[in-house]
Amino acid sequence: MGDMGRGIVAVEPGKRRIKVGVAGFGNVGRAFVELLVERRELLDSRYGIDVSVSFVADSKGVLARREGLPWSLLALSLKVPRGGVSGLEGGSPGMSVEEAIAATDIDVLVDVTPSNYSRPDPQLKWYRLVLGSGGAVVTADKAPLATRCDSLLTASWRPRLFYKATVMAGTPLIDMLRWGFSGRIVERVTGILNGTTNYVLGLAEEGLGFEEAIRDAQRRGYAEPDPSSDLEGLDLAAKAAIISCTLGSPTTLWSVERRSVVNEEAFERAREAFSRGRRVKYVAVVEVGKGSFVDLVEVSKNSVLFNVSGAMNAVVIRSSEAEEVTVMGPGAGRKATAAALLSDLVLAAREVS
Amino acid sequence: MGDMGRGIVAVEPGKRRIKVGVAGFGNVGRAFVELLVERRELLDSRYGIDVSVSFVADSKGVLARREGLPWSLLALSLKVPRGGVSGLEGGSPGMSVEEAIAATDIDVLVDVTPSNYSRPDPQLKWYRLVLGSGGAVVTADKAPLATRCDSLLTASWRPRLFYKATVMAGTPLIDMLRWGFSGRIVERVTGILNGTTNYVLGLAEEGLGFEEAIRDAQRRGYAEPDPSSDLEGLDLAAKAAIISCTLGSPTTLWSVERRSVVNEEAFERAREAFSRGRRVKYVAVVEVGKGSFVDLVEVSKNSVLFNVSGAMNAVVIRSSEAEEVTVMGPGAGRKATAAALLSDLVLAAREVS
Repeated sequence: MGDMGRGIVAVEPGKRRIKVGVAGFGNVGRAFVELLVERRELLDSRYGIDVSVSFVADSKGVLARREGLPWSLLALSLKVPRGGVSGLEGGSPGMSVEEAIAATDIDVLVDVTPSNYSRPDPQLKWYRLVLGSGGAVVTADKAPLATRCDSLLTASWRPRLFYKATVMAGTPLIDMLRWGFSGRIVERVTGILNGTTNYVLGLAEEGLGFEEAIRDAQRRGYAEPDPSSDLEGLDLAAKAAIISCTLGSPTTLWSVERRSVVNEEAFERAREAFSRGRRVKYVAVVEVGKGSFVDLVEVSKNSVLFNVSGAMNAVVIRSSEAEEVTVMGPGAGRKATAAALLSDLVLAAREVS
Repeated sequence: MGDMGRGIVAVEPGKRRIKVGVAGFGNVGRAFVELLVERRELLDSRYGIDVSVSFVADSKGVLARREGLPWSLLALSLKVPRGGVSGLEGGSPGMSVEEAIAATDIDVLVDVTPSNYSRPDPQLKWYRLVLGSGGAVVTADKAPLATRCDSLLTASWRPRLFYKATVMAGTPLIDMLRWGFSGRIVERVTGILNGTTNYVLGLAEEGLGFEEAIRDAQRRGYAEPDPSSDLEGLDLAAKAAIISCTLGSPTTLWSVERRSVVNEEAFERAREAFSRGRRVKYVAVVEVGKGSFVDLVEVSKNSVLFNVSGAMNAVVIRSSEAEEVTVMGPGAGRKATAAALLSDLVLAAREVS
């Protein structure tokens, strides 16, 4: 075990050959493939996982090889502009992910397409194809789970569906809830799970106006060009739904009550609270078996959430057996999300071979 | 999935009959059996685990039934004085755990005997018997892993050895390190992992003397009658070793450098630091692949460890991929430890059937 000293956690014996398909090849998809290229020898030496990539797909088409894409070609694919992978030699412009799944023989689908809550159907179809034939899915896309976890987290599919990248990506909260609290009764999870809104509410405390704060967050890459999904609590509601699903209480983001949004008025409130030594946080609350909501809450210095600043995330987990557990750490972010996906790929490898 | 609304995490399909042997029947052993009695129907309905207890063993003997102890007899065993289980009807005074393992047909051994670092051999023998025949071990006993993880966490045994109760019992840190950080490179783990010393150092800040503080902690049940294992860093060193082993860098508690102890002098230092707005914390530090140590460190208000008060535990995990992750929560404690054992029993059930 001498060669294990670099801190990668060994999981299980035996050599496994794992064929991966990557759906989505934007910022996070590329970060994942980069990390995979960087770590593929470590995956082999530490976990006995012999990984290959059978396809990468973007919105315009697919680059696929049934026997696995050469690593040199994969490295090249990282350099083409968005929407360009199918233009590479041997690429298939116009090919869909569904067709790529049918044409290759993947063990694990990695879904890094953007979360499309109003239209999760294509992704759901992919998941059913892969899970239904004994494969595993690793996802950073929140939409399928946040809308249809009842049909995905079934007894037979649940063990092959990995999604730690969907909530607090850089912080393995989902593993803690899934495995760490198995057998226990989790009553309530309260979390600052959206870095964008936590960051801009911090700027409100510094006296910045709403529009100005949004522009600042966009400049730093903390907010999307269209930040409405964050500001209106849709992203938080999706994460609340996924947490609730994980804790055995299936729900959808549409059932999560969104009691408030981050707007000018919220900025006023945050400023005013801060002047009284308190802070306003935009949180998701999951009351397991009862319901979930998203709201602006005022916290005092005594709350562990008080010190969660900037784009940082944090959750407080209340169980019936012991005092509260708090987890703080990075949420989204290119490399953090890629690391979460890679981690789930290692876990997925145990379940498909 | 409607009946899953109470927050227990479903793990996998299929019904499993799991026969458990419990070695150690003191404070924690009894809390575990109590919780098992309370939750056994939930284990069945949520996880499909049909659990039975084949034996309970204390220092004086064993109460065993190959076909499983009746729940009524188990309930009765909770009421006899320490060392008395083998005096119950059908009990075997003088029988050893080793003999009990041979005489029954258990799937999972639950080790809740006290951590005996200088003589872990009996427990190691039990583990080898059970793991070697395809069974699983769930343990709250730190000694076997802290002394011989190299021989226990082998590729074939590792997946069947569960030990989240050994470190931050009420807080599922081990699951996070084991599964949550799989595939990632953890560089350093720094933790307040001994509630006793953290509690008494807090009393130092309040101006209490060393002896007085120890007596206070003993009165509240935070310190053992002989607190030397806590004060001299042996408990912290054992936890550091277990964390290092979990992260793929096998070591023993004897290799963990104990740079300081909690004594009169440490109390002086804590008081003096507190007068300057800082705090002294007794921490374990695991530098993965490099070495581990136990030391008194001074932290400022900017450190997340600053606010960890009383018997609370906390760790900071540094990885190569993203910002630090902090986990705070309950450490030892009767019910918290029992909950950790029950949780691991659920995970163990997946691996043995």
